This record gives sequence, C-alpha cells and structure tokens, in this order.
Amino acid sequence: MHKYENISAPVIKRLPRYYRFLGELLDNGVTRISSRELSDRMGLTASQIRQDLNCFGGFGQQGYGYTVEGLYHEIGHILGLDHSYPAILIGAGNLGKAVAVHMSFEKRGFRLIGIFDNDPEKTGFEIRGITVFSMDQIEQFLSNHQVDVAILCVPKTAAPEIVDHLYELGIRNYWNFSHYDLAVHYQDIIVENVHLNDSLMVLCYKITDANEPPEQNGKRQLSD
Amino acid sequence: MHKYENISAPVIKRLPRYYRFLGELLDNGVTRISSRELSDRMGLTASQIRQDLNCFGGFGQQGYGYTVEGLYHEIGHILGLDHSYPAILIGAGNLGKAVAVHMSFEKRGFRLIGIFDNDPEKTGFEIRGITVFSMDQIEQFLSNHQVDVAILCVPKTAAPEIVDHLYELGIRNYWNFSHYDLAVHYQDIIVENVHLNDSLMVLCYKITDANEPPEQNGKRQLSD
Repeated sequence: MHKYENISAPVIKRLPRYYRFLGELLDNGVTRISSRELSDRMGLTASQIRQDLNCFGGFGQQGYGYTVEGLYHEIGHILGLDHSYPAILIGAGNLGKAVAVHMSFEKRGFRLIGIFDNDPEKTGFEIRGITVFSMDQIEQFLSNHQVDVAILCVPKTAAPEIVDHLYELGIRNYWNFSHYDLAVHYQDIIVENVHLNDSLMVLCYKITDANEPPEQNGKRQLSD
Repeated sequence: MHKYENISAPVIKRLPRYYRFLGELLDNGVTRISSRELSDRMGLTASQIRQDLNCFGGFGQQGYGYTVEGLYHEIGHILGLDHSYPAILIGAGNLGKAVAVHMSFEKRGFRLIGIFDNDPEKTGFEIRGITVFSMDQIEQFLSNHQVDVAILCVPKTAAPEIVDHLYELGIRNYWNFSHYDLAVHYQDIIVENVHLNDSLMVLCYKITDANEPPEQNGKRQLSD
C-alpha cells in the first residue's frame, strides 16, 4: 500500500523522462534493468533513481533490477496517461499548427478535438483533420462537447481576454505557450507553461557563463 | 564587488521570468517597485525575491525598492542577452518553422543565420528571410560563418547522426527540441532542452492528481 500523494514536484518533472527511457528499452526488447544501467543511460545517479522510484513503491528487487514493462506502465498510470482528456487548441498560427501536428496527444493522456482562431484567414482550414473554427464558435462548441483542457498558442496580448472567456465557460486546465502568467490571475486553475523565450534566455546564460571568465563576471555592478 | 559565479540553477531558471516582468513594468512606465509588489505580480514570496536578487548584489534599497530599469538591464546583462550568438536551425518542419518565425532571437542574445533540412521539398524556400539549405551544405556554411549554436527541431531518430556531424564540425551549444538526450552522449556541450511531450505529461499528471481522490491513488500497486 504505497501512497502517491506526496511525490515532490522535482520527482514529477522527472517521471516523463523515466517514461520515455523505459519506452525505448521496451521498444528494444529489454525486459529488465538495474538502477545502475538506468543511471548510465539517463545521466542521473543510481541512488537518485532508486530514491525517485521509491517514492511510489520502488519496484526494484535486489540483484534483479526493475521490470521494464511493469515500471513503464506504472509510471504511465501515475502520470495519468491512460486518460483521454478532451482538449482544444486556441491559436492556429505557426506555433499552434506545430503543436497540433507535432504532438502525440493520444499517447500523453489527451485528445485534440477542436482548434480555434480569430483570424478569418485561418478558419475553415483543416489541421490534423480538424477544421479550424472562429473564436466566436467556442461557446457553442463547449455546450456540445466536454472539454477539459485549453492549449494556448496565442500572443501574450491576446491571452487575458481569451482566458477570461474560457474561464467563464468553465475551462480550468491550461497548457500555456503564451507568456501570460495565468496562475497569478486565477487561483483555481491547473496550468503547465511552456516558456520558449525563457528557455532561450537560460541557454544564453549558460553559453555566456561558460565563455566569460568569472573575474569579469564578478566585477559587474548595477552602476556599470 | 558581487560575484555571480555561484548562482544556483533554480535562481537562473527564474531570472528570465524576472526579466519579462520587469520589461512589462518598464513598458508601463513604472520606475521602481518593492519586493512586495513584485511578489504580488509574480506569485513568489517577497522573501524569495529578495533572496534571489541578493544572489547578484541585491539592488534594492530599504524603503525605496528596486529601480526597475537598472534591475531589468542588469538581469539582461547577467543572462548575457547583450550578446548576439550566431545560430543555425536544423529541421524546417512545422516545429522548426514555428521556432524560426515565432522567436525574438535578437532580444534573447542570438541571431538566426541559417536554416537546414534534408527534405528537398523544404529546401530553397525562405523562412523569416532565410533560405532553407540542404543538410549537405552545412559543412561549407560552417567554414564560411561562425556559428555558436544549433537549434535542433528534428525527430529523435534523426538526431544522433545530425548531432554527431555538428559536434565534429565544432558546434558545442544546442537548443534541443528533439527527444534525444544529448547531454548523456557528449560531455563537453551546453544544452538546453525543450521537451514538449514531457510538459504535456506533467500537465496530465496535474489534472489526474487533482481529479482523483488520494485514496484511490494510494491503492495503486505494480501488481494491479
């Protein structure tokens, strides 16, 4: 009887990675693996891996390792990937289109059932077999379909009004590609952000940090 | 004389967010702000903010707060955004195209100078004013241009060969959208990953976790 309630945020963030690696092992016909081998492949320490997997029961056996298939399915189950949460995508620009086409929603616990954009030049076309509707049609769509998640691929400036509307219509779960910080404005929502600009800035930091001598860094002050 | 070398990874991850918020404040004509106000807007505690900003010198003054413009520029400087690292994009599919068009590289310390794809149907076209070249042309391109960063928007299966080649040609910095874990295979590279599938799975976990009673969760075991 292992409880899962108290899995920490960092462990949760690592679960998808375990899931991906185990999926690869399965594809390659590997049936069991030691924490040591897993650590070599994942770039985590074996002790970190044992600790992580212990959080939800530690499926390993001393001297035997982990059953790849069992662990894979269990992590998928913990992640909730056996669900099929209906999702709509808002914004059919380059990014929205890439997200719609690129993602394996069905393997990740979701299914994409609607795409909306307020640009008349984008509506009427099909993306991934789904017709892009006008934003005006969202309310009617939501009265006919259960929708659990909205995927926001809209500019930051457009986001507040759109989210207000979606929130009013009952949407509480968001996959957010806009740079609008939803969580600050709504207390009772679930949001997972993809901040591409932030990621690019972190890369810039890492490169700069690696290439500039610390002495130089150290002398920077606000008054420079 | 404040040293920056020891800024922890979590603080670095937050810097882009500070930078975005401060940029907004600047755009709105705000000249100074207290850690309390900053915390209200960012959803962090005031004490967390003071701690973070203290890492690189703590520009606040008791009873006065932070100078928005000074802090904005200093954080941008720490992030290295005043650089202009030349970057090439590999993979001109939906995702690559979205990244090329969507990102403000110039504001984030980079400039996009080349796009490559091995699909003849994609080469020859222009994206963001940049002609898409064939992968065969990378070597020649790199002999004529300094390139600091490769942005990988290729499928996982194609990534190993491409990265091997880029690594051989001297590229050591990667913005990685593929699900290939570069850092495991190369020790002396800098990589920042964008794992969209992982983010989607974390969202799935959050929704599932919020909607299923812990009793039920708690009873899950591998043998289920």
